[in-house]
Amino acid sequence: MSREELTKIILPEEKLPKYWYNVQADMPNPLEPGLNPKTKEPLTPADLEPIFAKDLIEQEVSTERYIEIPDEIRELYKKWRPAPLFRAHGLEKALDTNCRIYYKYEGVSPVGSHKLNSALAQVYYNKKQGIKRITTETGAGQWGTALSLACQIFDVECMVYMVKVSFNQKPYRKSFMQMYGGKCVASPSELTESGRSILANNPDSPGTLAIAISEAVEDAASREDTNYSLGSVLNHVCLHQTIIGQEVKLQMEMIDEYPDVVIGAVGGGSNFAGIAFPFIPDKLAGKNVRLVGVEPSACPTLTKGVFAYDYGDVVGHTPMLKMYTLGHNYIPPGIHAGGLRYHGQSPLISQLYYDELLEAVAVRQNAVFEAAMLFSQTEGILPAPESSHAIRATIDEALRAQEEGVSKAIVFNVGGHGHLDLSAYDNYLTGKTEDVEFTDEILQKSLDSLPKV
Amino acid sequence: MSREELTKIILPEEKLPKYWYNVQADMPNPLEPGLNPKTKEPLTPADLEPIFAKDLIEQEVSTERYIEIPDEIRELYKKWRPAPLFRAHGLEKALDTNCRIYYKYEGVSPVGSHKLNSALAQVYYNKKQGIKRITTETGAGQWGTALSLACQIFDVECMVYMVKVSFNQKPYRKSFMQMYGGKCVASPSELTESGRSILANNPDSPGTLAIAISEAVEDAASREDTNYSLGSVLNHVCLHQTIIGQEVKLQMEMIDEYPDVVIGAVGGGSNFAGIAFPFIPDKLAGKNVRLVGVEPSACPTLTKGVFAYDYGDVVGHTPMLKMYTLGHNYIPPGIHAGGLRYHGQSPLISQLYYDELLEAVAVRQNAVFEAAMLFSQTEGILPAPESSHAIRATIDEALRAQEEGVSKAIVFNVGGHGHLDLSAYDNYLTGKTEDVEFTDEILQKSLDSLPKV
Repeated sequence: MSREELTKIILPEEKLPKYWYNVQADMPNPLEPGLNPKTKEPLTPADLEPIFAKDLIEQEVSTERYIEIPDEIRELYKKWRPAPLFRAHGLEKALDTNCRIYYKYEGVSPVGSHKLNSALAQVYYNKKQGIKRITTETGAGQWGTALSLACQIFDVECMVYMVKVSFNQKPYRKSFMQMYGGKCVASPSELTESGRSILANNPDSPGTLAIAISEAVEDAASREDTNYSLGSVLNHVCLHQTIIGQEVKLQMEMIDEYPDVVIGAVGGGSNFAGIAFPFIPDKLAGKNVRLVGVEPSACPTLTKGVFAYDYGDVVGHTPMLKMYTLGHNYIPPGIHAGGLRYHGQSPLISQLYYDELLEAVAVRQNAVFEAAMLFSQTEGILPAPESSHAIRATIDEALRAQEEGVSKAIVFNVGGHGHLDLSAYDNYLTGKTEDVEFTDEILQKSLDSLPKV
Repeated sequence: MSREELTKIILPEEKLPKYWYNVQADMPNPLEPGLNPKTKEPLTPADLEPIFAKDLIEQEVSTERYIEIPDEIRELYKKWRPAPLFRAHGLEKALDTNCRIYYKYEGVSPVGSHKLNSALAQVYYNKKQGIKRITTETGAGQWGTALSLACQIFDVECMVYMVKVSFNQKPYRKSFMQMYGGKCVASPSELTESGRSILANNPDSPGTLAIAISEAVEDAASREDTNYSLGSVLNHVCLHQTIIGQEVKLQMEMIDEYPDVVIGAVGGGSNFAGIAFPFIPDKLAGKNVRLVGVEPSACPTLTKGVFAYDYGDVVGHTPMLKMYTLGHNYIPPGIHAGGLRYHGQSPLISQLYYDELLEAVAVRQNAVFEAAMLFSQTEGILPAPESSHAIRATIDEALRAQEEGVSKAIVFNVGGHGHLDLSAYDNYLTGKTEDVEFTDEILQKSLDSLPKV
């Protein structure tokens, strides 16, 4: 069938990629090294081994272009992968656009989001070296849920520090993790020194991802049998997510299509990296493809932040990474896309953005919800608020193309469904969602927390 | 690949069935006619035309074996169909069973449940004859959500009366419907005569499906441009759901497999009918296949009810149908499987059960949740509480087979995911779910409401 007739483009299971794509092999400028938070010297593998599996540390620094997906992971991926690519006929019609719009849908995973792509890989490698317990943090809850399931599959204990404001807004995320056998506590908690010191200063702290990371890292570092796991930002996490973009490329080939624009929401970066990185080699080879990350205007790391060394967490337990950042003390307003409320950015995305291989736009919450509603009504799928950032930017691209009288092929990533985010939509439908202005004053204040290198 | 190796059995899109299977063509004993609630005479099409589309009335009484699925519906089905069939390797291992266990997974539909199979068909036929507005009732909310989306697709207004206890327990179901453009009110409401009279007697009425049906039917009957739509029970609804079982048969053929036991949860009946009816011709031809419906012990329509004429709603607006019933005044306790809290049963299932072509078992709520948790942890999918009834019965079948030293092939239907039911799981995890005893006394009292024919 032609691409005009098809709605769902299905990649045959035997075409499921056998390798993750490592963008570090192709970067014009390599990453600057992470720094030990105490010595401020470049990180060594020995710095990371107390909390990360050796195979993951290797992936973190590898410059091999393709890294084999272990058979066991690939078999687990087949539970829901290859994930469908849809032609957005309904959305196109509503926009009256000449653009051809496609979206990858990761919401068919058992946990409802793309996060399981990396969770399975991370727990697999940890289990392989005998780790019995893994700690992590979660914002909106997607990552904590995915890691809970992955730990259950490999018989590893899972301990999740969940940002308190989300924990209270979405109590049922905890139940979801518990159904998978995971433990979930609100962060800041009394369980760690980091948590206790935050609570001592501010008993009502709503928490942030940066605080929760401090707790999870401290917990992992303090126990021999325990490692730490991060759901975004790091190179190996972005690596695992490249299965998304590789599938997209194969699916578009099947219908003799190639995108002019590739769009993904960007918080810590794994979602956007997943769909965009596999297009980098084409771009470097001269293909005219734009790769656009979409962030919330309330937390505009790429569009307003600085490219500098900063901590990943609030206390300074994590290595210092060269990345776009708003400062590790920045507390983003309580927008509903909890998964995008992070002060920093994947170093890989940061370097590629700095080198102008990636673009970024910031969009406002209410415009995002409006886009989500149009998408729900025309494509039938209720998207997660995070993913809806990509939808907003896609609609804007299509409208702009219309004004310019051109036709483009646009593909974006719907990283998860929004069936667990209905309280956010309820707020939108009842007029309770605000657009917060991010000012230079806020920026200056938050950048004060940047460490000196 | 052999059936031992495969986890996910994928039916190619071109094999998507082109016909719904109509069990009325093959029933040893035909249905007894529905009766006009006023005259108690057999229903005529004219009795139904004020609230149902003509094509659906035709389907309701048709004895054609195969009814063609219109191309437009089939194209819409392709958004998520054919739905995957999984081999439950994880569950089998946990049970240490020799049985081969399979499950069909309808949770991949955009609304997260099988209900969309019939919603799309019903709105299509209504739209075709110019209907501008459709009313319905919903218990757990799955049906109301599916109908809201289907109405949005065909540009028809949607009005949902939602059982008040569910409406209050799950406020976000309303938001989901609203995102699709549907309107949703708590029932009993002040909008209808039926609702007002219930509220006059009992202002705190928690509502029931039977009350909500009264409201939706009254609303539809009172407006020329409005029809009524039901998400289960009726023949045409069961018909539309047979796409499930037809796909299952094709998928099992692909791996040279045939089930000894087919299992589905049964409330109004469309889920169970969907997976079971396509096996009826084989059974009549001598195949040794058992078809087992699973109901909650708190609402044991098939296992404890009587086979008699009764109303579908509480007020007596609907036709009287010959069915297994607990009496239309029966108010089931507030178990969490809201979709199974219905006093009656599909007349088709009732007749086939009476004729011993179908079996039924009743299971308790806490045992159901326990099964759901095991399934979540071994298969990765969090099931809806309704679907978890089928999981419970499957586990019991497998354990019994183990005791008897036999190996069986068992297939069951997971009609929906449980991402919208986490409040129920939270209650289970915190020890708040009760098992309510259904006694002969309760039965006698509720049967007092049966109408005289």
